[in-house]
Amino acid sequence: MISFPQGFHGIAVSAGLKSSGDLDLTLIVNSGSIKYGTAVFTDNRIEAAPVTWSREVVRDHQVAAVLLNSGGANACTGPVGFSHVHKSAEMVANHLNISASDVAICSTGLIGVQLPENKLFPALEKLLLEMKDGSILSSVENVARAIMTTDSVPKISSSTKGDLRTVGIAKGAGMLAPGLATMLSVIMTDGIVDPKTADEIFKKVSQSTFNRIDSDGCMSTNDTVLFLASGESGVAVNDEELEIMLTSICQDLAYQLISDAEGHSKVVHIRTIGAASESDAVTIGRSCARNNLLKCAINGEDPNWGRILAAIGTTNAIFDPYAIDVSINGIKVCHQSAPGEPIEQVVMKNKIVELLIDLKSGPHEATIYTNDLSAAYVHENSAYST
Amino acid sequence: MISFPQGFHGIAVSAGLKSSGDLDLTLIVNSGSIKYGTAVFTDNRIEAAPVTWSREVVRDHQVAAVLLNSGGANACTGPVGFSHVHKSAEMVANHLNISASDVAICSTGLIGVQLPENKLFPALEKLLLEMKDGSILSSVENVARAIMTTDSVPKISSSTKGDLRTVGIAKGAGMLAPGLATMLSVIMTDGIVDPKTADEIFKKVSQSTFNRIDSDGCMSTNDTVLFLASGESGVAVNDEELEIMLTSICQDLAYQLISDAEGHSKVVHIRTIGAASESDAVTIGRSCARNNLLKCAINGEDPNWGRILAAIGTTNAIFDPYAIDVSINGIKVCHQSAPGEPIEQVVMKNKIVELLIDLKSGPHEATIYTNDLSAAYVHENSAYST
Repeated sequence: MISFPQGFHGIAVSAGLKSSGDLDLTLIVNSGSIKYGTAVFTDNRIEAAPVTWSREVVRDHQVAAVLLNSGGANACTGPVGFSHVHKSAEMVANHLNISASDVAICSTGLIGVQLPENKLFPALEKLLLEMKDGSILSSVENVARAIMTTDSVPKISSSTKGDLRTVGIAKGAGMLAPGLATMLSVIMTDGIVDPKTADEIFKKVSQSTFNRIDSDGCMSTNDTVLFLASGESGVAVNDEELEIMLTSICQDLAYQLISDAEGHSKVVHIRTIGAASESDAVTIGRSCARNNLLKCAINGEDPNWGRILAAIGTTNAIFDPYAIDVSINGIKVCHQSAPGEPIEQVVMKNKIVELLIDLKSGPHEATIYTNDLSAAYVHENSAYST
Repeated sequence: MISFPQGFHGIAVSAGLKSSGDLDLTLIVNSGSIKYGTAVFTDNRIEAAPVTWSREVVRDHQVAAVLLNSGGANACTGPVGFSHVHKSAEMVANHLNISASDVAICSTGLIGVQLPENKLFPALEKLLLEMKDGSILSSVENVARAIMTTDSVPKISSSTKGDLRTVGIAKGAGMLAPGLATMLSVIMTDGIVDPKTADEIFKKVSQSTFNRIDSDGCMSTNDTVLFLASGESGVAVNDEELEIMLTSICQDLAYQLISDAEGHSKVVHIRTIGAASESDAVTIGRSCARNNLLKCAINGEDPNWGRILAAIGTTNAIFDPYAIDVSINGIKVCHQSAPGEPIEQVVMKNKIVELLIDLKSGPHEATIYTNDLSAAYVHENSAYST
């Protein structure tokens, strides 16, 4: 069983926010000597109340606790929704004897519905009393379970190197997209990081990991990825080590997310090479990842590469429209933007489908991970709130 | 039965390009004293060979004939594909004793497959002989049928005003999107138009009609909309009359396209008002039209307005994130970006769903027409080429 890094502990309860009665409210506390924290949030201009709050919390890079709930996004909830966030943070702060401005809040679930006060606050009160008592702390797995929505499994990743321990949890199964996914994630380390550089490194790593998965092109109002450090192991982590460690964990979590996306049957790796810039390669990958016709073809195990070219052609990336090569699962079905090897040679039975796009315009590359578009996705998302 | 405007005639045959044996090759000829022609094409940088050809044809605004085929897009087909276009135009030109540079060519169907020479050219030869013979001319409906792909019905619109007659045909059912849809359309009038202004008027009308439907966000490689005038009625059409007449026909055809989109169960009108610019209103509408989660919710008759706000928030349009109102079928479910009337009041049983978004940022508005995302869409598009 995976345990928390030194200095961190958590507790998870069922507040009844989920109609299933599953765990839906959890608190993670950093009781270490250092309470470093930074975060990356959704780019969506319609942001949930907890995002607005947490942006302010991480501004001074001091985060002592994180309260997370599933069963409601607290997005598009107006002043009432914001007051719920404020009150929650104050309650946590009072019990832990810390400042409310060091308490980050994350929510996930349906947009446009108020969190039920009569369930949330009594459950939070109980959770805080239990935590003070210390007898009923939760496992990392249960904390991860408490933030699940349509996820089928909790997502956890960890690394241990001598005394240094880092653990990340994440949730997210739909709305996986640009300004991150519909995801919440908390990465905790007991290492000592350089507060002057850790923020920038974390943002860079998020860009190249969480921000390279794009399940359905829909951007969430609630995405939050937090990175917390307690320093309790006493191990100093230099910048290079930090980047490697964070990349490993974030990449692992990101792939777990895309592998558990709503209603998918395929995980699609879209690798674009020969790009004039990394940004061009990302643009090409995203354009393919968001093309419904292509995603349907992949669902049908149909190597319909014309839809890849049609998606590429909608971008402003640098390429010669008559020079593009495309391989599907290793078969170069398109050579110089025209028919290549016979499509009958392509085998698409496996869950992983690999698309390789060569723009022949430079030395850069990037890989975007996505899913097929399935009837199951439609079924799952046509009956979410009702 | 709808007849061609004076000066136009057409013929349609089955060349065997469609495996069904249905009509798939058609020629429209303008034998009038005026052979005015202009066109709007796809914005996709990966464009089909017939698009590359036809762009040159319309440059001098002289179009004497249009050859159209379904059963193959002739896109991503390299030099061989272009030679097929060139040879087809030469054959038509020789038979009609006109210049090949006045013969527009349009294709629609699967991308990345060569048109079968052994079927195309013998069928074209036969078609041209029959046309010369004059005994076997086709109806407008059969010409419209010959360009159908997954369309369930031919799309035709016409207007008559005294001696002036205008008829438009169109096809398109999937890939309905930005640089037009996966659509071909030919609008024919026997009026006399001003060649100095008709081009600009036609482009403007296309923008506000065909370019306001967005079924699945996927841009085609083949979109072509042609406007031809024969002058044979002798009726001069001034600029204002032309704009009204073209808008009426193009709007009608566009709505026929969105009402016959692949696998849909709903036609969604997304009207954005209170925008700082018309462009902002279009951007907001398109963002909603391409949001798979929202489209799934509409499929499930679920008034999940949070997904509308989440889609709005991804744009750069001018708005206050806390001031947006949204109505679904007349019920204001979102007021000031927060919960409004109870969603239980919304009835979504009918085929048409009306979304009204008020940005409260200015006097401009626009309506985008889209469809829901259904399991049927996935089924249809996961088994297209195989």
